[in-house]
Formats: sequence, C-alpha cells, structure tokens
Amino acid sequence: MELGVIGLGKMGLNLAENMVEQGHRVLGMDADLALSEEAKARGIQFSQSIPDLLSRFTDRKIIWMMLPAGEITESVFQKVKAQLRAGDYIIDGGNAHFEDSKRRGMECEENNIHFFDVGTSGGVSGARNGACMMIGGNEKAFTEIEEVFTSINVEDGYLYAGASGSGHYLKMVHNGVEYGMMQAIGEGFNVLKHAEYDFEMGKVAKVWNNGSVIRSWLMELAFDFLSDNGRLDDIEGVVQSSGEGQWTVQEALKMQVPVPVIAQSLMSRYSSTDEEKYGEKIVASLRNGFGGHAIIKKED
Amino acid sequence: MELGVIGLGKMGLNLAENMVEQGHRVLGMDADLALSEEAKARGIQFSQSIPDLLSRFTDRKIIWMMLPAGEITESVFQKVKAQLRAGDYIIDGGNAHFEDSKRRGMECEENNIHFFDVGTSGGVSGARNGACMMIGGNEKAFTEIEEVFTSINVEDGYLYAGASGSGHYLKMVHNGVEYGMMQAIGEGFNVLKHAEYDFEMGKVAKVWNNGSVIRSWLMELAFDFLSDNGRLDDIEGVVQSSGEGQWTVQEALKMQVPVPVIAQSLMSRYSSTDEEKYGEKIVASLRNGFGGHAIIKKED
Repeated sequence: MELGVIGLGKMGLNLAENMVEQGHRVLGMDADLALSEEAKARGIQFSQSIPDLLSRFTDRKIIWMMLPAGEITESVFQKVKAQLRAGDYIIDGGNAHFEDSKRRGMECEENNIHFFDVGTSGGVSGARNGACMMIGGNEKAFTEIEEVFTSINVEDGYLYAGASGSGHYLKMVHNGVEYGMMQAIGEGFNVLKHAEYDFEMGKVAKVWNNGSVIRSWLMELAFDFLSDNGRLDDIEGVVQSSGEGQWTVQEALKMQVPVPVIAQSLMSRYSSTDEEKYGEKIVASLRNGFGGHAIIKKED
Repeated sequence: MELGVIGLGKMGLNLAENMVEQGHRVLGMDADLALSEEAKARGIQFSQSIPDLLSRFTDRKIIWMMLPAGEITESVFQKVKAQLRAGDYIIDGGNAHFEDSKRRGMECEENNIHFFDVGTSGGVSGARNGACMMIGGNEKAFTEIEEVFTSINVEDGYLYAGASGSGHYLKMVHNGVEYGMMQAIGEGFNVLKHAEYDFEMGKVAKVWNNGSVIRSWLMELAFDFLSDNGRLDDIEGVVQSSGEGQWTVQEALKMQVPVPVIAQSLMSRYSSTDEEKYGEKIVASLRNGFGGHAIIKKED
C-alpha cells in the first residue's frame, strides 16, 4: 500500500521504516527538513510539505500522523483533511485524547473521509520491529486497510476496538495501568535499596524475569538499566508524564470509578517534579505551629 | 539427589513431581494421608511421619518444607531440626517472614545444619514445570546443592540472594510489587468496564499481551479468565492477602521508605474484604451530621 507518514520523530521514523520493510511504498514528511537524509536512508520518500506529500500518492491516500498530541496534531489534521477526498484515510497514531479523536472522526465522516485513532504501544523498538495498536473508527473501512496493521504489528498485536475514540481510549487506560505497574516496580526496588541485605539490583531484575509472577516487559527494561551496577547515581529521580495517566484519572473521576493506585502513581510523578514543595512547606509550618517541631530554614 | 518434601499441597506436590522428573529421588510426607496415592502416582515415595521420612534417606538429608507460613512451618522446622545431623539441609520453600527465616538460619547454624529460605514464585504451573526461586543462606553450602535449583527452575530462574532471610525478603518485596501491578490491572479493566465503549475484555487483554509496554504474565493470566466473556458475574470482588504484601509495607514503614502504591494495593484488598464497612458508616454519619446528607438505613 501507499502510506504517507507525517511526523518522523523517534516513533514515526521507526514506524515508517517498519512499513518500508513490510513492502509498503512510504512517503514521509516532517517540519524538520534535516530529517530528509535519515528518512531517505531508511527508504522513505521525503517531502517538505503536506501538499508535496499528497501530490506523490498515485492512488487512494492513507495519511498516518505520528505527532505530539494537541495543537500540532490538530493543525496537521485540519490541513490534511482539507485536501483529502472521499474514501481517503487519516490515521492518528499519536496519543490524542479520545474526545478529540471522536470529534475528528465525526468531522471526517461528514466528508466521507475515514478517520482512525490508533493507540500505539511498544516503544521505539516496537515501532521499528512490530508494535501493538488499538484502533478506533469505522469497521468496514478498517477491514479495507487491515493488512497494513497485520504487516507492521507483532502477531495478534492489533485490535479493532470500536467506534472513533475507542483506540485512543484503550491506549489511555493502557498507559494508566502502565503508570501503576511502573510505580509498583519502582517502590519495590526502593525497598530493596534500603534493606539490610546488599541486593544486586540487576540480578534481582533478572531472576524476577525468569519464571516469577511479575515477569513482564517492564521488568526486562529494568534489567537492562540495572544490570550495570543498579545505583542510578547519574540520573535524577524525576518522572515526567505526557497526559494519558492524567486522562485516565480524569475519566475515572468523570465516571466515579475508583482508581486509587493509578491516581497515586500519577501523584507520585507530580511529587517527583515538584521542586518547590510548597505543600510540604505548609505541612512543616503547621507542625511547627502546633507542636513546635523544628522547621528547616534555607541557608542564605 | 535425595530430597524429602514435607507438605504436599498444590505447590509441594507439583514441585515434588518436578523434582522426580528431573531425576531426583523424592521422598514425600504430608499430614493428610489421603495424599498418599496421588503422591505415589507421581513417583513420590510417601511417608506417614517425619521419622519415617528421615529414615528413608540413604545419605545426607535435604528436607524441603512447602508449608503454610507460621505455626505449621515452625512446628515442622523444630521437629526436623531436632533429628538432623551436621551437614544436613533444611530448605523452607514457603512464604515465611524473613525475620523468622533469619532466626531459623541462626538456630540451624548452631547445629551445623544448613538452612535455606527459598522464596518461590511462578505459581502451581511454575512449581510443576520450572519455578523462580530467591535463595538465602550460607553461600558455600548453597553451591553444594546448587544443581537442585538448576534442575527445578526455569533457565536463570534462581538467585542466591545472600545471608539467611534474604530469599524470603526478596520474595516478600516481589509480592509487594505483584500487589501493585495486579491492582493497576484491575483498576484499568474497571475503567474499561464503565466506559462509553463496549470493549471486549478478553480481546483487550490479548492485544495488551502482544507488543505493548504492559505485556506480562499477569496480563496473560487475565486473558485466560477474560477470554470467555469477561463479565466475571460468577465471582465476588473479594481479594484475600496472605502476608507478603502486608510485610512489605511493614518493612517500608520500619525503614520509612515511601511505598504509596504498594500500600494502597494492600488497603484496596482490605477494603474488598471489609463487609461491615464501619469506617464508611462513620463517614456517612459525619456527612449527615454537618450537612444533613441522607444516610442509607438498613431495612428491617
């Protein structure tokens, strides 16, 4: 098939190369023109603009956006949609909010363009070698391009999940679960770090990956970075978040579904980036106020 | 090697059969004499008492306890220890508290008996076909019987973790991490259950197992029980706990190490078994007291 990938960042570039390897004709476009050489080296025909990208299609257009959620996705979506014709496809493989994807699906439907929200998991290596995709959109239109998903994902690694938005909804919850699993793993190793035994973290991660109940891809990743000496002295204990965990909690709040562990995982990330610690200053001051407990003054 | 397994419950019986398959001579004993036939059918020489079991060894004794932690383990441990000689082995493959295992290790050391605390993971299927073991005790004595661990575990599926107690310590934290991962998975599916989309839970678990970041053995187990219709109408939402999660949190409290997600996972289990809901009755009554919010009266 002919596929046009817009956004050749880490995920997009590797996914596009995966598509090339699977025999598709892959057109690519990125605002960063410096990516042109890299793209060509990977067999991707690079375009400098959306009109140029679209002009290179010989048949039905399938545009695959791999862009940061938010303004960029919306801007590119609108530009592309305006230039597509009935029967063409727009796939959003990024991490948009499912409500945005629902709305984009409706906008496309009005123009008989097929929109698919595709939650993509598996990281960069997955994008390159076989990913996992959760797909929302029209089922009939999906079956017409299903072979694309068969080709670029691992076996049984894609799911047509339902109407527009359902793909990104599933990916959102996937990431919520991921937050909780990651936080549990982090806490476990932190207990081991402070324990009376001198555990070798890499060896622990290794044995936990072989036959244990908690064996998982996340634990394999942990083994990769713990197998040196496990001290992690060279990095800060700061965990960013990119939206899906927050959205999972917001969705749970909207439905009043209890998600204490996923919510706590998110809060732990917020705490890790909270340099000011204003909340803790309040608590320390209150404690000083009623009990005379010492507060720690900053040095001048 | 000659191995004597005491406790032929689900784990012990399958582990003993695994040992038989690996070419060991396996003696077995259980207080439940009805297990005799089953044990014999699996190639285990069944004894009705500890003295009988011990009398059947032709050489150095290696006693492998697979018993519930607590009184039973302590009682059997003391009886066995009293009848062993210098150079013999006692292995506790159950889920004892690591402080008990440290003490048992010391008691054995005084008699030149080798004690090993062995945290065992992988469930019943692991016990039968290849488990994961975390091992604490004397390192030199360990190397003398290491081939037993090589034979009954999956490849790279055992770790000599350090001094007495370290094996059960690692297993304790492993289970703490497991609690957090399980709770995150449960919460994620609960969000999906209440979502505006009609997700097929089995298909979700399947796709999440193929190429996604959260692929894991726990998710494979989820697929197994969700692949029918995923409704789980026939079971209660009650989650028991058997100690290790609680001990992980107690250990974290002792060391003042933050484990919010593991602690919350434990509390969620406690909530799930709390039929009386006395705490919620108090909160509902307080809310009624200050705001006149309705409280729900039980019917007569």
